[in-house]
Amino acid sequence: MNLYDIQQQWLASPRRVIGMMSGTSLDGIDICFAEFSIKDGRHHYSIIEKALYSYTLEERDILSRLLQDTISIEEVSHANSEITALHFSYLQRFLEEKGVNPLQCDLLSVHGQTVWHSPPKDGEDIGHTLQLLSIPALAALTNIKTIGDFRSADMALGGQGAPLVPIFDAEFLYSSQKDTIAVNIGGMANITIIPKDKDQQIMAFDTGPGNILIDLAMKRFFGKQYDENGVFAREGRRLERLWKNLCELEYITQKPPKSTGRELFNATLLQDILEVSFVNTFPGEDIVRTITDFTAWSIAENIRLFGHPESRILITGGGAHNATILSGLYKELPNAEFFSPQEIGFDADIKEALCFAYLGWRSLGGLPGNIPSVTGAKKEVILGSVSP
Amino acid sequence: MNLYDIQQQWLASPRRVIGMMSGTSLDGIDICFAEFSIKDGRHHYSIIEKALYSYTLEERDILSRLLQDTISIEEVSHANSEITALHFSYLQRFLEEKGVNPLQCDLLSVHGQTVWHSPPKDGEDIGHTLQLLSIPALAALTNIKTIGDFRSADMALGGQGAPLVPIFDAEFLYSSQKDTIAVNIGGMANITIIPKDKDQQIMAFDTGPGNILIDLAMKRFFGKQYDENGVFAREGRRLERLWKNLCELEYITQKPPKSTGRELFNATLLQDILEVSFVNTFPGEDIVRTITDFTAWSIAENIRLFGHPESRILITGGGAHNATILSGLYKELPNAEFFSPQEIGFDADIKEALCFAYLGWRSLGGLPGNIPSVTGAKKEVILGSVSP
Repeated sequence: MNLYDIQQQWLASPRRVIGMMSGTSLDGIDICFAEFSIKDGRHHYSIIEKALYSYTLEERDILSRLLQDTISIEEVSHANSEITALHFSYLQRFLEEKGVNPLQCDLLSVHGQTVWHSPPKDGEDIGHTLQLLSIPALAALTNIKTIGDFRSADMALGGQGAPLVPIFDAEFLYSSQKDTIAVNIGGMANITIIPKDKDQQIMAFDTGPGNILIDLAMKRFFGKQYDENGVFAREGRRLERLWKNLCELEYITQKPPKSTGRELFNATLLQDILEVSFVNTFPGEDIVRTITDFTAWSIAENIRLFGHPESRILITGGGAHNATILSGLYKELPNAEFFSPQEIGFDADIKEALCFAYLGWRSLGGLPGNIPSVTGAKKEVILGSVSP
Repeated sequence: MNLYDIQQQWLASPRRVIGMMSGTSLDGIDICFAEFSIKDGRHHYSIIEKALYSYTLEERDILSRLLQDTISIEEVSHANSEITALHFSYLQRFLEEKGVNPLQCDLLSVHGQTVWHSPPKDGEDIGHTLQLLSIPALAALTNIKTIGDFRSADMALGGQGAPLVPIFDAEFLYSSQKDTIAVNIGGMANITIIPKDKDQQIMAFDTGPGNILIDLAMKRFFGKQYDENGVFAREGRRLERLWKNLCELEYITQKPPKSTGRELFNATLLQDILEVSFVNTFPGEDIVRTITDFTAWSIAENIRLFGHPESRILITGGGAHNATILSGLYKELPNAEFFSPQEIGFDADIKEALCFAYLGWRSLGGLPGNIPSVTGAKKEVILGSVSP
């Protein structure tokens, strides 16, 4: 069997792919239905339908329990099945609401629910990652060819398994005028630096927390899931001692490649920092404001340290709707040229789902999905696992 | 892309597949390198190389810890990576020792380490199962196309996800003269009943424990991993009260479809039964003998209840080397016609690894791998997930 022919056949016609992304912030599942094609040697996408679904409180609780406590292997197995069922049910809702016929879909590309991610540490050859979701089960339920488990091949080759979005950025956001920086603010925040000079390596890494610390503080002080539009933060003022403690977190200024997650930025870290600062006497708004300012600062500081502060900057992810994060970034990077995702054809929120649709499309076409200079893997590799 | 053409292309030439099986008994990894082809509409296999590797005590301990204790999600993620690395290292050893060039291998087909398996219970739509091993990681390490995770598609369709060996038995063991029964004695014991009358449905199910209770007793009373050739059992005599307690275990006479595993037959069950019988005063040999007799009886009882005791019977798996189990079966089923796996071209021990190689070969050819009358799934489905 000539695998190369099959891959060429896949790339030769436009393909319709559904991307499903469920992030570490456990807020829900984003779905993007897009068509990919190649014209004059360049890749093209067009978004056909999209939706952002929020988990119910009950669904969030199930997932949170899984991420925080010591559990039995039975519960892990059960969660794997539940997460698959959850994806199936949101996918069915999407197909119905958008009037999409599953027979029109060439591929379903799913990220799966990350429940653990440990990049390789000093002295270790490889890290490990676990995305729960059964690919054969989802394919059997949907009758759509399904791909997932995108991070483990890169990690097996010594990579961090993240970030994977940069290959999308490199293909679709490049400018020959200025360096371009794509910032994505999800649970964690990550950036991709795409140099205008094609000889320079693309860099991409997690800058630190995205919405996660803000969300945790909102839950603790206001019983809310997140700070809508950043209005709570806007009402508060910065607490200098808390600010200082946050800015001293080592991860932020650490040199890339680097990636992080809930194993570092979590309720325990917040608790530790809050206790140290004796801030229980201050209003919650001040704490949310300080954390929000810190989040913006940590992204900007990474851009100043490892990129050019005069770059073109695109901000996506849930955090793109937090006006207080945005104004923090504008202040921190006064000479940058900010542009909106709408200008290049997609909504801020849908980027990751679109990227994973793109990664799935690449894998079926035999194209590698990782960038070794970004993940640290020893070579390029075709990502994921496909059923049937 | 015409998937059907690709599958036909796969089936049109002989394909060389490595099957890797690591069973619930945690004894090691069996590897079988075989060629599959189609001639006159019938499937054919020939075994090129094979090896049975035992885990070191350290490797066993790592796996046992994972299966017994409450653990953190980090440990599960780490185990997933460790099990992948373990498969990679045994595969490398196999390729070297046997002088097999990985470029000669069309496919690597791996079962993965089952750490949990809950078939659907009354009132539940679906069960869940978890085989640890990262398929994309193993493919990236080996540079061989890799398939695994064979059980979850069947379970998503309401099946028990087991047994999967019957499709091999149905294809290769059928006789028009007599019903054929394939017995496999691994950690658990399972049988496939292939009626001589092709209109009758194939049945297959776990009869109960295979070697697991014997192994647990050997460990407890003699500090050994298993009862080699059944010599400890041969020295003992049956303890009637323990025998009675064992034979009363509900699972044995329960009607199929049924499947079981370590969630029922484990150290806790053995402990419970031993305490009830106050057998601490008897020699370990008597206990091992009683459990061995019970194991043979439980297989024979299932054959009497749900098949014909005059069938052709093939015994495979590690338990086929336990002379005390075998003589128990000969006594329990005096009118059966026993035949050896050597007569049909393979060793008793290698059958499961060969079967999973066959299942992988079927999936790449677009052929379903489950038998709905056996697993209870609502339809046939192509099993597994493939990288890259």
